[in-house]
Amino acid sequence: MSATILTEQTVEQTISEIEEIDATAARAVQLALDRKTKPRRSLGRLEDLACQIAAIRRTATPAPGEKVIVVMAADHGVAEEGVSAYPAEVTAQMLLNFARGGAAINVLARHAGARLVVVDMGVRVPPPDLEGVRSVRIAPGTRNLANGPAMTRGQALASLDAGIAIARELAQEGVTLIGLGEMGIGNTTAASALTAAFTGLPPEEVTGHGTGVDQAGLMRKLACIRRGLAANRPEPQDALGTLAALGGFELAGLAGVALGAAARRLPVVLDGFPASVAALVAVRLCPRVQGYLVPSHRSVEVGHRVVLQALGARPLLDLDCRLGEGSGAALAMGLVDAALKVLGEMATFDTAGVSDAGA
Amino acid sequence: MSATILTEQTVEQTISEIEEIDATAARAVQLALDRKTKPRRSLGRLEDLACQIAAIRRTATPAPGEKVIVVMAADHGVAEEGVSAYPAEVTAQMLLNFARGGAAINVLARHAGARLVVVDMGVRVPPPDLEGVRSVRIAPGTRNLANGPAMTRGQALASLDAGIAIARELAQEGVTLIGLGEMGIGNTTAASALTAAFTGLPPEEVTGHGTGVDQAGLMRKLACIRRGLAANRPEPQDALGTLAALGGFELAGLAGVALGAAARRLPVVLDGFPASVAALVAVRLCPRVQGYLVPSHRSVEVGHRVVLQALGARPLLDLDCRLGEGSGAALAMGLVDAALKVLGEMATFDTAGVSDAGA
Repeated sequence: MSATILTEQTVEQTISEIEEIDATAARAVQLALDRKTKPRRSLGRLEDLACQIAAIRRTATPAPGEKVIVVMAADHGVAEEGVSAYPAEVTAQMLLNFARGGAAINVLARHAGARLVVVDMGVRVPPPDLEGVRSVRIAPGTRNLANGPAMTRGQALASLDAGIAIARELAQEGVTLIGLGEMGIGNTTAASALTAAFTGLPPEEVTGHGTGVDQAGLMRKLACIRRGLAANRPEPQDALGTLAALGGFELAGLAGVALGAAARRLPVVLDGFPASVAALVAVRLCPRVQGYLVPSHRSVEVGHRVVLQALGARPLLDLDCRLGEGSGAALAMGLVDAALKVLGEMATFDTAGVSDAGA
Repeated sequence: MSATILTEQTVEQTISEIEEIDATAARAVQLALDRKTKPRRSLGRLEDLACQIAAIRRTATPAPGEKVIVVMAADHGVAEEGVSAYPAEVTAQMLLNFARGGAAINVLARHAGARLVVVDMGVRVPPPDLEGVRSVRIAPGTRNLANGPAMTRGQALASLDAGIAIARELAQEGVTLIGLGEMGIGNTTAASALTAAFTGLPPEEVTGHGTGVDQAGLMRKLACIRRGLAANRPEPQDALGTLAALGGFELAGLAGVALGAAARRLPVVLDGFPASVAALVAVRLCPRVQGYLVPSHRSVEVGHRVVLQALGARPLLDLDCRLGEGSGAALAMGLVDAALKVLGEMATFDTAGVSDAGA
């Protein structure tokens, strides 16, 4: 009981530290970009990215820095309903794969020059010898959301708290860009349920094939979400209660990462559907988080469009991906770095002796 | 006269060397990707990229290699009509900026790990001391396309030939990925005129603000294109004649790069509107080139959508850019490398001990 109160305080404290992003820094960066040897605004959303990072980091000279992708894994009780193309064991197997460096996100993070922080938020049976994996393990998987709350409020708070702690720690280490990644068999079911609850849209409009479940599986998934909404009757104004009822440890943990990053003025790079839902949870807990979210790709998962719209995030990449793990975040990080290098390294009209428009 | 015949032979010879891309290699790569620890096809268009590069390079194990962006600059007679937001001097000034490393493409190529090959295809007055710039200089700018042919057929052939020679040389050096970049005040007017001629669409549907010309400038631009189409009466089946009538040295040069790269089994990364038009010219000269074209971004320039459609190329990036110089190609190169690393570095279900779907 006292632990729950303690974490609630941490979340409240963190939220109280989150400021609106700094529009003055963004304006200064746009002015600096307008002096660079290119037609004004001709780098479009790359310029927007530089401005946004400046606003988040509250500096007119944001340089590329250390990048981290936080990949959180957890199991979901609802997996017992046959909502995924893969057996639940795969969550733990992939955790091991992350630890050993063989997964897509290992390759893509390396490509982006980003460090991976892999967190076991609660897989059913953790593999032995998980060197390099951070063990938080709220519980060995959530309960089945179709029958009642997936988590207690205390578990949801503890998950948020763990995410906040990781973000604070990364900020302390000097990290300047954090990407969200997730792994959890069954978690697109949780993500769709949360999306339906938060947006009020009917489940069929926010539920897709996830990692590739067949049509019968999709029907089971939809039935679970409907049962879960009926059993839990989530009230979207109660973001924490909704998260607890329908979420998962990794989704709550990533929501905490987003809160903690925003409190420490760090940009948070979105990923696919479940990670974006985690960011939406953070925004529902604290709307000021929205300014800290950097878009990445548009997944083929139908609910992702809905969530990105709710977040006001227009994707940078159109790759038909639906992997998660932070793979989209890793690819977008390359664009963020490119934007900051344009700002930092390009010549100006004056220094290069290039005539400006209308000159 | 003999020089013209010579280059025509080079172009014909190059075209005769261009094979269809290798579907067998693409299939082998898709099978290899299907064994990697991720849901099948979950990396979507990143997987398509790996398959396409394999098909182009005719190997089932294409690794990331040396990348080059060929940036060609030239002046356009039509600039005298006030069709650009910038004075014509800017072409040469930017050539100097490229040579000194201060332009956006210098920053973005460095970010992508790509080498720049900067070519003066014919700016009006070349700046002195252009170390590192390759001088081809067909003429000091084209003639005004509004009044008659911008180039002679011989000049168009010589430009194509120069591009072919550069691509062959890069292939010889072991380069494995070539991006197209251009700079030329007035060249979106030429690109729009070529697009109208090749697609049969009315000029107003393929003409935009380029680097940012105002509404009056856009009207002048449209008038020039209409005059140019009337004066030249291009026949789109005669791709070379159409190119000569309405093109530019840098556009013809890049079409040559695309032909030469395809002949040497090298992927060609598209960029914005003028570079994509150059690729379209190459495809009209040899339809087999189409398989060698790797998409990059969708520019805000209205004609770009039309040309990408004509090329069957769906952009990977949605950045509202309109800079050219190869900037979009540089950003897309990061995605190509990511795709090849996924293929080369990820673990398989077997080696990682991860359960496959339905297993």
